[in-house]
Amino acid sequence: MSKTNPGRFFEDYHIGQVIRHAVPRTVAEGERALYHALYPARHALYSSDEFAARSGLEGSPLDDLIAFHVVFGKTVPDISLNAIANLGYAEGRWLRPVWPGDTLRSESEVIGLRQNSNGKSGVVWVRTRGLNQVDEVVLKYVRWVMVRKRDADASPPDAVVPQLAGAVAADDLVVPEGLSFADYDFELAGEPHRWGDYAVGEKINHVDGCTVEEAEHMLATRLWQNTAKVHFDATNREDGRRLIYGGHVISMARALSFNGLANAQMIVALNAGAHANPCFSGDTLRAWSEVLDKAETDAPGVGAIRLRLVATKGDSADFVLKGEDGKYDPQVLLDLDYWALMPI
Amino acid sequence: MSKTNPGRFFEDYHIGQVIRHAVPRTVAEGERALYHALYPARHALYSSDEFAARSGLEGSPLDDLIAFHVVFGKTVPDISLNAIANLGYAEGRWLRPVWPGDTLRSESEVIGLRQNSNGKSGVVWVRTRGLNQVDEVVLKYVRWVMVRKRDADASPPDAVVPQLAGAVAADDLVVPEGLSFADYDFELAGEPHRWGDYAVGEKINHVDGCTVEEAEHMLATRLWQNTAKVHFDATNREDGRRLIYGGHVISMARALSFNGLANAQMIVALNAGAHANPCFSGDTLRAWSEVLDKAETDAPGVGAIRLRLVATKGDSADFVLKGEDGKYDPQVLLDLDYWALMPI
Amino acid sequence: MSKTNPGRFFEDYHIGQVIRHAVPRTVAEGERALYHALYPARHALYSSDEFAARSGLEGSPLDDLIAFHVVFGKTVPDISLNAIANLGYAEGRWLRPVWPGDTLRSESEVIGLRQNSNGKSGVVWVRTRGLNQVDEVVLKYVRWVMVRKRDADASPPDAVVPQLAGAVAADDLVVPEGLSFADYDFELAGEPHRWGDYAVGEKINHVDGCTVEEAEHMLATRLWQNTAKVHFDATNREDGRRLIYGGHVISMARALSFNGLANAQMIVALNAGAHANPCFSGDTLRAWSEVLDKAETDAPGVGAIRLRLVATKGDSADFVLKGEDGKYDPQVLLDLDYWALMPI
Repeated sequence: MSKTNPGRFFEDYHIGQVIRHAVPRTVAEGERALYHALYPARHALYSSDEFAARSGLEGSPLDDLIAFHVVFGKTVPDISLNAIANLGYAEGRWLRPVWPGDTLRSESEVIGLRQNSNGKSGVVWVRTRGLNQVDEVVLKYVRWVMVRKRDADASPPDAVVPQLAGAVAADDLVVPEGLSFADYDFELAGEPHRWGDYAVGEKINHVDGCTVEEAEHMLATRLWQNTAKVHFDATNREDGRRLIYGGHVISMARALSFNGLANAQMIVALNAGAHANPCFSGDTLRAWSEVLDKAETDAPGVGAIRLRLVATKGDSADFVLKGEDGKYDPQVLLDLDYWALMPI
Repeated sequence: MSKTNPGRFFEDYHIGQVIRHAVPRTVAEGERALYHALYPARHALYSSDEFAARSGLEGSPLDDLIAFHVVFGKTVPDISLNAIANLGYAEGRWLRPVWPGDTLRSESEVIGLRQNSNGKSGVVWVRTRGLNQVDEVVLKYVRWVMVRKRDADASPPDAVVPQLAGAVAADDLVVPEGLSFADYDFELAGEPHRWGDYAVGEKINHVDGCTVEEAEHMLATRLWQNTAKVHFDATNREDGRRLIYGGHVISMARALSFNGLANAQMIVALNAGAHANPCFSGDTLRAWSEVLDKAETDAPGVGAIRLRLVATKGDSADFVLKGEDGKYDPQVLLDLDYWALMPI
Repeated sequence: MSKTNPGRFFEDYHIGQVIRHAVPRTVAEGERALYHALYPARHALYSSDEFAARSGLEGSPLDDLIAFHVVFGKTVPDISLNAIANLGYAEGRWLRPVWPGDTLRSESEVIGLRQNSNGKSGVVWVRTRGLNQVDEVVLKYVRWVMVRKRDADASPPDAVVPQLAGAVAADDLVVPEGLSFADYDFELAGEPHRWGDYAVGEKINHVDGCTVEEAEHMLATRLWQNTAKVHFDATNREDGRRLIYGGHVISMARALSFNGLANAQMIVALNAGAHANPCFSGDTLRAWSEVLDKAETDAPGVGAIRLRLVATKGDSADFVLKGEDGKYDPQVLLDLDYWALMPI
């Protein structure tokens, strides 16, 4: 009998099933340094212990997307090893910062199942939680994937399609304990634009571009212990290129968005996300954002801003998203909807 | 007079000579993070402080192969700068874990010399010890290399060929102080297979593949302060490719072997090793293992398993090793024989 | 109104203006590990806490060039985003080591302005200071760049050209507090050559070569939060290659210079520097040095040596620098003049 993990197929999931994902991971200053090497990340709260302390935190937390990638990476062997497509995200919330030295692990609960009409695959919805070493939830989100069936003749489960919020409500956003932007230094942060300066509907072209290389995305994807073969094995495709982990595009686009959104410091919610088209080595990534909503919070000087972040391999000045047919433009790689915290 | 290091030639070695290698190195969490970025490393004991603590250790040690690479790297300027070939390893034993913050240095004693019949080169055997900041030996091993003579007319030394064990005896394996797998969490470790589930002679195809890039192996080889020119200088070869450090292949194969050997947590002995064929950028590495032996230990819940680890740029499902002529198949890159500790 | 940073143009600078650069940065052991992965860095004082302690320091500081790159990187969005050329450095002095955990920020004062005769651009001189979390200056240097005018018709400022020292005087070199080479271990450091062994005028070919890759220089340049577009965006040039950050060449050359200058441990002054020709992916870098001057210091066993460090993509054995026309040879990439501390 084989001792290797063949991954789970559609029949292997049932509603209410809780999967405790393997390989807990201690994250520390090495991961922080690598994040800065892999992405042009400049948000001051994640760059400087001093800036974070002045913002009421005990020190600089690890980037919110480090938490996301590590938690997500652990789910891959159980959720998406046989996935045909990563269909979406919803109801993502960051509940606590991750500090250097924390150890993260992940658990997922199956909350939805629906066999596809072709009988060969189905959609699985899971709610994933990332926990630290004292079992506090640091992050939770729903994602759904299309998974192959092992046996096309297996009978379908009763369809359960979860009701998911279109966006996390502003009242449900969790501001990290102690956070205050009352004494915020806009000059050190890099831009003068405060929460009040952004208008719903406003679009921002982040201007800068970054061309991605095979070595970089593989370093990143391994760092998150994401084991999906397509990111590493050049023999999977005729052209030898490897499909780049969608999360690499998320982090690159978020880092590029510093130029125009330097004060959108902390990510607190992931409302929705689509990996619109595959990304490959040699693509030059650019990004633009759109302000979707704004909300106040109870924390001193802290506002919330809801943003659409679009990564494109085309010209970010065009703000292209979808064609008249409602389909994503071929150059759009990512369409991400999130909430961030910003000084008022 | 030149101030640069020309390396040592065969005539520069004599039996009993002890070489204290240069450039001690403090290793810490940055090296740990880079190891996870460079290799798909997932063994839980090296990934999580919590998992290591539950296994009786004070925290997660640095990967055993980080210790090996750092200790080995220091020997290169003195042992293998003028080496024609790295011929073999024997009697390798890990005696103590390396913790973040430890400072490592290396010493080698010349234990064998034999001039080749062509008179142009000879074989040098050294026993290398890696020491930490309080002069405890953390690792020792024998390796032998073929080294050029400076002067073909120099008279040969008396031949001394050391008697080396075919494998480290199970009784000589050192289990780290305090290690216990009595409370082992197989689910968090990633696989249910325990020591008792493996049979001598069993072969495991580790399935996954990873294509290597120039930037990656150079980052790794520099990280270990290995200075061998062939790994870095594209002008050495017509095709501009650089010969990949054999240790990069070892770490890649070991990490790939997680899939099927997730519970072979700690490496405690290196019995033998051959870099069967050179590895180059663009090669897609796969791995398979064979169980060679098993032994019990005195530590709670801890068994020892002796494994052959083979890295190939071909199909690991074929378990190809050597041809009928006894020579390694051209696709085999590494044939490594080691002992690991596993929960019983 | 655009929220992104267009960079400053020549008209935006005035004499006496102080610019507080954005995004403070905490640097720690992760940055140290990455530095060792990116460059073949082997100077023992920056590799081993034990070696540094024996030299009178509390531990191993971060490499002097990490401090330089971080401080420099912060100035890019304000000083050189619209620069046509990086013209020179002078009066650079390292005043305090940077320790793991320190947070660095940068400030620049405009000390010179001169419009070019073409009316389209001008030269800006700034004195940049790097400060740590307790506002101690760790590093200061002057650099001057050629910057585009926004409006060619704008009237020129009064020309102010600062008088800059040709080299930092030996008496102005700052030896880190406590530094002593009285108990220096030449064997562990890697070479026997002491300060007394080097003669003014002596040239050293550092022999080794290292071929650079796109992924590597982008990792490095992002790590220093240097945002200059030309280093990252392949669409800037027909051939898809990215112009490599000049500081990457400095670090590579300095690391290569270990072979022959292993005991030139600490950089304490930057006298001058020219990025003679652009460097691109695929170039194989080699280095040679020339001893320009020597001086004693008051610290036990510590001498100072002034070195010219030349990086070339040609043969470093030729010691080529400039042609008969006084112009740099096309293969020369860097001509750097610095002071280092060395055991007497």
